[in-house]
Amino acid sequence: MTGKVYLIGAGPGDVELLTLRALRMIREADAVVYDRLVSDEIMEIVPSTAQKVFVGKTPQNHPVGQEQINQILVDLAKQGLTVARLKGGDPLIFGRGSEEAAHLRSHGIAVQYAPGITAAQGAASSCGVPLTHRGLATGVQYVTGHTQADGELDLDWKSLASEDTTLVVYMGVANISQIAMRLMAAGLADDTPVMAVANATTPRESRMFSVLGRIASDSREAGLKAPVLYIIGKVVTVCNEWPVNQFLAATENEQEEYAGVASHA
Amino acid sequence: MTGKVYLIGAGPGDVELLTLRALRMIREADAVVYDRLVSDEIMEIVPSTAQKVFVGKTPQNHPVGQEQINQILVDLAKQGLTVARLKGGDPLIFGRGSEEAAHLRSHGIAVQYAPGITAAQGAASSCGVPLTHRGLATGVQYVTGHTQADGELDLDWKSLASEDTTLVVYMGVANISQIAMRLMAAGLADDTPVMAVANATTPRESRMFSVLGRIASDSREAGLKAPVLYIIGKVVTVCNEWPVNQFLAATENEQEEYAGVASHA
Repeated sequence: MTGKVYLIGAGPGDVELLTLRALRMIREADAVVYDRLVSDEIMEIVPSTAQKVFVGKTPQNHPVGQEQINQILVDLAKQGLTVARLKGGDPLIFGRGSEEAAHLRSHGIAVQYAPGITAAQGAASSCGVPLTHRGLATGVQYVTGHTQADGELDLDWKSLASEDTTLVVYMGVANISQIAMRLMAAGLADDTPVMAVANATTPRESRMFSVLGRIASDSREAGLKAPVLYIIGKVVTVCNEWPVNQFLAATENEQEEYAGVASHA
Repeated sequence: MTGKVYLIGAGPGDVELLTLRALRMIREADAVVYDRLVSDEIMEIVPSTAQKVFVGKTPQNHPVGQEQINQILVDLAKQGLTVARLKGGDPLIFGRGSEEAAHLRSHGIAVQYAPGITAAQGAASSCGVPLTHRGLATGVQYVTGHTQADGELDLDWKSLASEDTTLVVYMGVANISQIAMRLMAAGLADDTPVMAVANATTPRESRMFSVLGRIASDSREAGLKAPVLYIIGKVVTVCNEWPVNQFLAATENEQEEYAGVASHA
């Protein structure tokens, strides 16, 4: 009797942002295979009877490779277990859910998806920053700023540097200097608003406001550590924490340095 | 005693794709103000005691303008009611949630958000089409294909026509001919895979597969009606319903016409 695998988006962190389907699937699970990006709050609702397998990847340190994760999922399902594969955000957006699904199906194992609220959506709702807004952004784009081998990012910078589109960069903290430079070289203004968010929707959420021309140095000075989400574009100014006066002053007087750091109440 | 307004993402249609927060907020509501894009299934779980106000906008027919919606929300909250403002998808992605929030706050009314699974995520999970996938798409972009005044779309076509990015077009069926033409003029290949999805994640879900060069005529011939979501890019080929052989044949023999229509089982 072969089991099955649920590929579950665990959302940005807050348990209340799980979908009803994700909650049902977690409760049905005999085994839970989870990532570093799944919050402690989510892991607390996993049934105590379920076997827990951590396969987290840290940016500089890959303890469990993708092939090994695939093998773990196959092995657990072949034991007849119902396996909940928990991922931060949505399994089909930077989640490699489709790679795991293809591998499992090639072994005759049934797969079902539960989509999840992305970190971008979580950060947007918790800060009151829209991802689109009439007159500020006609669309939104998600991209990952993480490279496999610490090399140059191979992204379509001309496409990313659209001043009418909100750009959300996932896993970008290690390469934020390169990202900001490339976006400005491709045409984005150096005073384009940026919000950096860590641990969105959890009690540990923190935000930093900056502009594209200073976000790399501000990130360094603030000591931001992965995972950090960058929201880049005019929509950031809709947040009522946006320090508009300070930035206007700073733009007029380039000597001045400013990084607005706000903690989630 | 002023009430409050919950700006709630009702997701793509399936009740199971509501977040736990959205469900809680709906259950607390004294009044529900809802859009055309909120599914019948979702409306069925609204408490029978709650007042229901339909403010749906249809593409050609705007029965309730945004100013009027704002006024309705203010009036209900001023009566001391807890108001659930339900929107399809996510309130901060093409949902005008931030506009309504700004208006409400200017009247001293407290607002809380519940993010929702977008139609793109719903369609992706139900069809097994990833929005990003190594080697096929480094990112994903959402844009709306709807114009206010039936005029030319004012979009950044160069940015949208990135062959390494999945492009999701919301509300695009009325303008799909213009959209496809502009994307090809900006550099996307005419054999770029396209999936059109209607009523994703509901029992009425339907899908059509095509390629960019034929999506406008295929949409017309299939009689697609709004709301339709177009997913454009190589990721569409990951769906196991993708009619790869037919399209390869059609590309070799341009005389041949093909539109694969599949219904959701």
